[in-house]
Amino acid sequence: MTASGPDPVAEQIAGRLRTLPLVDHHVHGCWLVDGSRGRFENALNEADTDPLPDWDSAFDTQLGFAIRARCAPLLDLPAHAEPDAYWQRRTELGESEVARRLLPAAGVGAWLVDTGFQGETCTPHELASVGGGNARVVLRLEVLAEQALAAGGHYRTTFAELLEAETVRHQAVGFKTVIAYRTGFAIDWSQPTPAAVDEAARRWAGVGGRLLDPLLLCFGIRTALALQARRGGLPLQFHVGFGDRDEDLHRTDPLLLLPLLRDPLATNASIALLHCYPYERQAGYLAQAFSGVHLDVGLAINYLGGRSRSLIARSLELAPFRKLLYSSDAFGPAELHYLGADLWREGTAAALASLVSDGHWSVADAQRVADLIASTNARRLYQL
Amino acid sequence: MTASGPDPVAEQIAGRLRTLPLVDHHVHGCWLVDGSRGRFENALNEADTDPLPDWDSAFDTQLGFAIRARCAPLLDLPAHAEPDAYWQRRTELGESEVARRLLPAAGVGAWLVDTGFQGETCTPHELASVGGGNARVVLRLEVLAEQALAAGGHYRTTFAELLEAETVRHQAVGFKTVIAYRTGFAIDWSQPTPAAVDEAARRWAGVGGRLLDPLLLCFGIRTALALQARRGGLPLQFHVGFGDRDEDLHRTDPLLLLPLLRDPLATNASIALLHCYPYERQAGYLAQAFSGVHLDVGLAINYLGGRSRSLIARSLELAPFRKLLYSSDAFGPAELHYLGADLWREGTAAALASLVSDGHWSVADAQRVADLIASTNARRLYQL
Amino acid sequence: MTASGPDPVAEQIAGRLRTLPLVDHHVHGCWLVDGSRGRFENALNEADTDPLPDWDSAFDTQLGFAIRARCAPLLDLPAHAEPDAYWQRRTELGESEVARRLLPAAGVGAWLVDTGFQGETCTPHELASVGGGNARVVLRLEVLAEQALAAGGHYRTTFAELLEAETVRHQAVGFKTVIAYRTGFAIDWSQPTPAAVDEAARRWAGVGGRLLDPLLLCFGIRTALALQARRGGLPLQFHVGFGDRDEDLHRTDPLLLLPLLRDPLATNASIALLHCYPYERQAGYLAQAFSGVHLDVGLAINYLGGRSRSLIARSLELAPFRKLLYSSDAFGPAELHYLGADLWREGTAAALASLVSDGHWSVADAQRVADLIASTNARRLYQL
Repeated sequence: MTASGPDPVAEQIAGRLRTLPLVDHHVHGCWLVDGSRGRFENALNEADTDPLPDWDSAFDTQLGFAIRARCAPLLDLPAHAEPDAYWQRRTELGESEVARRLLPAAGVGAWLVDTGFQGETCTPHELASVGGGNARVVLRLEVLAEQALAAGGHYRTTFAELLEAETVRHQAVGFKTVIAYRTGFAIDWSQPTPAAVDEAARRWAGVGGRLLDPLLLCFGIRTALALQARRGGLPLQFHVGFGDRDEDLHRTDPLLLLPLLRDPLATNASIALLHCYPYERQAGYLAQAFSGVHLDVGLAINYLGGRSRSLIARSLELAPFRKLLYSSDAFGPAELHYLGADLWREGTAAALASLVSDGHWSVADAQRVADLIASTNARRLYQL
Repeated sequence: MTASGPDPVAEQIAGRLRTLPLVDHHVHGCWLVDGSRGRFENALNEADTDPLPDWDSAFDTQLGFAIRARCAPLLDLPAHAEPDAYWQRRTELGESEVARRLLPAAGVGAWLVDTGFQGETCTPHELASVGGGNARVVLRLEVLAEQALAAGGHYRTTFAELLEAETVRHQAVGFKTVIAYRTGFAIDWSQPTPAAVDEAARRWAGVGGRLLDPLLLCFGIRTALALQARRGGLPLQFHVGFGDRDEDLHRTDPLLLLPLLRDPLATNASIALLHCYPYERQAGYLAQAFSGVHLDVGLAINYLGGRSRSLIARSLELAPFRKLLYSSDAFGPAELHYLGADLWREGTAAALASLVSDGHWSVADAQRVADLIASTNARRLYQL
Repeated sequence: MTASGPDPVAEQIAGRLRTLPLVDHHVHGCWLVDGSRGRFENALNEADTDPLPDWDSAFDTQLGFAIRARCAPLLDLPAHAEPDAYWQRRTELGESEVARRLLPAAGVGAWLVDTGFQGETCTPHELASVGGGNARVVLRLEVLAEQALAAGGHYRTTFAELLEAETVRHQAVGFKTVIAYRTGFAIDWSQPTPAAVDEAARRWAGVGGRLLDPLLLCFGIRTALALQARRGGLPLQFHVGFGDRDEDLHRTDPLLLLPLLRDPLATNASIALLHCYPYERQAGYLAQAFSGVHLDVGLAINYLGGRSRSLIARSLELAPFRKLLYSSDAFGPAELHYLGADLWREGTAAALASLVSDGHWSVADAQRVADLIASTNARRLYQL
């Protein structure tokens, strides 16, 4: 492409993509307080929960290369700056100034923040203050379930009331489940009897800690779907695929959700499959098969860096175009909030321009689909 | 590519592909009688068996965009015509005239028609009358099994006789199984004893309807393979992968057929794996591993539209080139019969031209492989 | 690309890749003694263990086309020579002269030879004599386990002593397991008790032959990992994915190794996942998740021929760049030793040049990553 000069149609599409305001429908806070180089580099590896060995470097990855290529210029460094120079400059500026430069550059109009795990990250309010746009809250079901179990009392009632109360208190726009990390999706998805829930809650009260009981996890998801049915809005996000090594990745193939999706409670429910790598084609199938199933390929976009273009292109296969969403799933360094948007804009522009230049789509088609994924679909789904 | 002007080698390959007569080795009838817009739009979603919600549109998909881009001009509309204009023009012309324009443009010399599900579609004879070329019949095993069970009597004998009689009566060229939709492939594939078949048939006679018994489904497949061994020809087609949401897509990974394929009855049998998405690479492996296994990526080509090129390219990996086939799997609107061919021609041309321009293949290699997939392989396999 | 003239950056990267000395970290001997055309053609199909039917040709595959395109000129034939001409010229030259032309052209500085299956192939010493560079030995665990079982005596002691003695005797640089072919990866990976090993060894002594007992296979792998922990170096190679049809390919998804990898014995162990097709993205995930996990996409590169570029590009996704290795997995015809290298050089150059031309990587990044995969990573891992 470069050798043959700029393609005016590709440039037109890319130009529009660069300025489109986004809904980042699944994100976490960023850091505003300084930390060590170790904290920063650990945040560049999603899957490994241990520190890297001496001979390795978190920068020698697609994500590390993408940070050097695309974030360095916003910190006044040349593109492709060396890791040491990048870290030194980042330290000079401080975490807060890094965020002040990178977050607004993401061009996000609405941040839907999963507050279920915060670590040292900022609040949704702070995120919007620094990054611009509005922030809304997504509630993580398992956190509420663990709170309800710890509170004692009658679990079914406590959980249902807590879920509803927290939804109101935070004006939450949706729910998130990390059952992928707890049991994976190959569980019994049928409606548990009240007695079975009571019994499981009693049993788990003696265990405590991180909820791993499949029946209680299923109950939480079903309770959230029932609340969605009653109140409208409040889509349920599933972590799917790529994540840290605690999970059995092969048990997060979204096709294992079929028994749940075939249940009348879920068949037309509003659902968002997050990340999905390497099962993005299976997720696209479900988005065609069930009217309420949406998906994104966030998180993986950052980790694939220069290779994310082909992932984005693959997400444009079976999934209807009104079912695709944008997310960064960024957590911690503001580089992740920025890169998610920046790589999505460029990769989407390239994928759409190629469809147009091959005659499959019109330019107007490309622009409209870009709008849908950037924000229109999310605004409808989350009733923003 | 476009920015740098036409590549003469790519143009040469594309030109040949545009005129190559095809064997569409797995197809259904098209509509010749007018229907509602609902019927048309439902036919553009393979996986969802419910109507779409108000906020969605069947046109906002790769298939919808491909219809607007590629079929509109054959109905005297500009490429990328809007959905309403397309539907209006289609209504003016009538279903029969639409078929008269689109079917012959597919350039198919032989249609191998699965008559197992007809709905409002035309007969094989009508398809060939309108579309040109010849039509031959492929018999769906499960339909015959259900007829034999309903007929009562001694099931093993009734089914075997019905299979043979129907093969003769229709001069059928092959068989098709939809076990993917019934149990998936993770079943016991061993030869059932006669007593076990008798017992299962007795049991199922009390249930009736859509055959879901794995032992009887396995018996049907084994009976068809035995008839193939005795008579020659008569390859057995398996629906694999992408289809409607009744199936457990992950239980249609063709690798789950390995226990059957290792059985002496099947190891050298003539088998065609249909569609295969998203398991086309696994299907390619089986085509290398077993001398009788063939495959296509039909159906998915239509649904991937402008993205089908990369699927076609991936089908050219492990599978030996004499094992690849063309199908549309079209059912209903003649757009599907035409697009299957048109997208296959363009996607294959692009994949082959890229192999040639990178020095991996000669132009003669590309032209020969195009001929193999377009018709030569199917003519050998089905003894046309 | 071709139509728009050579891209100087791509040419610079390709030029460097063409001359980079490689460590082929998993390879077998080549033939130096003449054989039949049948032997040659059978060696071009990895998965099928039977001869091909009359109507098929081993040359009508991506591998066959790659041999005609890329090896023919080294035998003084034009590129894309016809199969008969190729075979005739090959016969004129003789197996030994073919090897003398093709092996050195692979540009390999170190051959790590799996001597577990030799057939008519040459020794590691002969391979290095003809091909240049040095050869080192990789020991196949299952061969040693079968020897220890056949030897009788106290199995646990016999196997552990044999493993250590053979490691010393051959100055072996690593181990290889083919458990993929024996049971697949979905086994109980926990530490067996000594009594259970003794009992399993007694039981298997009555069976003999090819070791298929999961407990004894697991014991062998754990014994090798314990020796690695004690001695340093000695990484363990796993055959993963694509291979002959004896294996259940779906049971070689490397994610099924998670229970082993989470065991303290393996979590930081040096491990190399070989081949990995079609699970290369899952293998990349494990390379990010576990500090000692490395991978290559060898074997599949040869079999994908002109399509291997996209496989190589996909291997550059989640896997950190210090975890990627080069191998040919060649066995038999020297074409495979040469093509593995030649296709890897060209495909890697293309993948890297595309990342550079799209602005994701600097030229220096590309050159450094090429060095890492070509040899630096393997030299560290195997302590060469």
